[in-house]
Amino acid sequence: MLADGLNLVPPEDIVDFFKKGDGFFIASHFNPDGDTLGSACALGMALEKLGKRSILVCRDAVPEQYTFLPGLERFMTFDAVSAGNIDYSLYKNLVLVDCNHINRTGLEKSRLASAGFAATTVIDHHETDRVFGDIRWVAPGIAATGIMVYYLIRAFGITITGPMADNLYAAIVVDTGNFRYPNTSPDVLRLAADLAEAGANPYLIQKEINESWSEGRFRLFIKVLGTLSINKGIAITHVTRKMFEETATVPDDTENFASLALTMKDIKVAVFVREIDDGTCKVSLRSAEEIDVEKVAASYGGGGHKNAAGCVAQGDLETVKTELLKRVGGALQR
Amino acid sequence: MLADGLNLVPPEDIVDFFKKGDGFFIASHFNPDGDTLGSACALGMALEKLGKRSILVCRDAVPEQYTFLPGLERFMTFDAVSAGNIDYSLYKNLVLVDCNHINRTGLEKSRLASAGFAATTVIDHHETDRVFGDIRWVAPGIAATGIMVYYLIRAFGITITGPMADNLYAAIVVDTGNFRYPNTSPDVLRLAADLAEAGANPYLIQKEINESWSEGRFRLFIKVLGTLSINKGIAITHVTRKMFEETATVPDDTENFASLALTMKDIKVAVFVREIDDGTCKVSLRSAEEIDVEKVAASYGGGGHKNAAGCVAQGDLETVKTELLKRVGGALQR
Repeated sequence: MLADGLNLVPPEDIVDFFKKGDGFFIASHFNPDGDTLGSACALGMALEKLGKRSILVCRDAVPEQYTFLPGLERFMTFDAVSAGNIDYSLYKNLVLVDCNHINRTGLEKSRLASAGFAATTVIDHHETDRVFGDIRWVAPGIAATGIMVYYLIRAFGITITGPMADNLYAAIVVDTGNFRYPNTSPDVLRLAADLAEAGANPYLIQKEINESWSEGRFRLFIKVLGTLSINKGIAITHVTRKMFEETATVPDDTENFASLALTMKDIKVAVFVREIDDGTCKVSLRSAEEIDVEKVAASYGGGGHKNAAGCVAQGDLETVKTELLKRVGGALQR
Repeated sequence: MLADGLNLVPPEDIVDFFKKGDGFFIASHFNPDGDTLGSACALGMALEKLGKRSILVCRDAVPEQYTFLPGLERFMTFDAVSAGNIDYSLYKNLVLVDCNHINRTGLEKSRLASAGFAATTVIDHHETDRVFGDIRWVAPGIAATGIMVYYLIRAFGITITGPMADNLYAAIVVDTGNFRYPNTSPDVLRLAADLAEAGANPYLIQKEINESWSEGRFRLFIKVLGTLSINKGIAITHVTRKMFEETATVPDDTENFASLALTMKDIKVAVFVREIDDGTCKVSLRSAEEIDVEKVAASYGGGGHKNAAGCVAQGDLETVKTELLKRVGGALQR
């Protein structure tokens, strides 16, 4: 029997949307992570149990570390949907999972959305000021969208199967940083226990997600660490186009590199700069709990959260780093 | 109310030992980790609630990453006990926590043990062939000694307090690799949830344990990664005495470095060699689940477990690495 720590109750109109409708176009956000993929996949499995048709769609291909998840082969990129023999007009009920605006899926720029959808539902745990969708279930206090989908599936009256549990456990692992982030509550741990009991294998799931690096990615990691400079509690690392070339890697391979310097107890802000071309850099900012880096990102026209933000900066690598050091230094003095 | 997933029942003679006796000399193993320290500390707190006197003793000082744990200031090194005004003859009931032989505490070489103990109890989750102690509770199937202590405290009829929960949660975090090792069962996750509910803060505990590196340790980490060589699924890294000097670090700072190369999916064995002096090296071996490195360690007179073993090898760094590559390569071909 599954315990019920959170007792999260999905809104009735969401449950009705799925129970009464058919033909669901389940869309994950672009640059997909374990939460959007695992949540969509588990939801697709539950809808199948209800005898409903659905397709799982994402602008981008599934990153390699998530391909082990059961059912992930169902995901189709926009191109694959367009190129295939799929009559996507059969899937008129749009569901956004782990995002709350169509802009986060890229669908608004795709011809897949040109005929419009009959209705749109949003299931997400990200904070937002924007209102999009006919039926919205946005719960920023919840650690992962996978947790919301868990309660939704149970509201359907469906038992969580092993493959659903794998997907939802992966969603939680990714969005709690393997139970290390501040959102790791007793309820989250208890739900993880329930999912492990339902068949999810904690060791194998984390191993696939965290320990399936290519040698190139590991060598890139070493090169990036080699660029470390530390100045008054600010750690800066960078990656160049040349490093990607030398290690046969891509920008996705730098996932989580940005926060690594926070392993040091005296580091308040970790800055990671990626060279895009000679005159443009992408900047990731990560900070200790009490420091707000969102404002620094905003000063460049970027955004994010208090402790994790990003922006694009003009200039070559050294110019950008020098200016960042000034602005972050200013934020530290406030 | 705390749930009771494992329903682990401590042997009656262990419970009686604590309930009937007084004056407990609680000894952790040398090179202490979060499990031995957290377990001992929580046990000491529970005994205090029972009105019993106890002292917490460890050969070595508490490593910095554990000093945040409530009550850890009670720990005394052998030297501190000897030098202080403590009449340790009042603490005649020896308790070994997270080890099952006095040789793992170093006490047998200390004058603290010269007068002998009235009785000895062992609480441990490590496998062993050796029999030591009057009353033994050795449970190799349990993920952490902290879990055993949790059930022991409850068998005393005592409610788990916040400070006890912090210590026991830390014990579990350390011995499950933050819920990443194969021992992460539904019961372990559920117990962690109970401890978080009892007051342990998952985020702050993992942060202190995992993210309180000195800058020197981080720079040592970068230097060690720089030595990486890969050969047919075997990754070798090393650390020299010079690297310790240059970064003002000590061998303890290399904790967990040994397994890092297993982050790569094609690596079967990670070898980490530490130069002790010109003619001697310490070797750590870590392997993917299906590979047995204990036999390689045994061929050098060392030991350990199937996936984590160690030994001492004679020769300079390069000689030792060349020979290791041969022996590990042989193990991979079997």
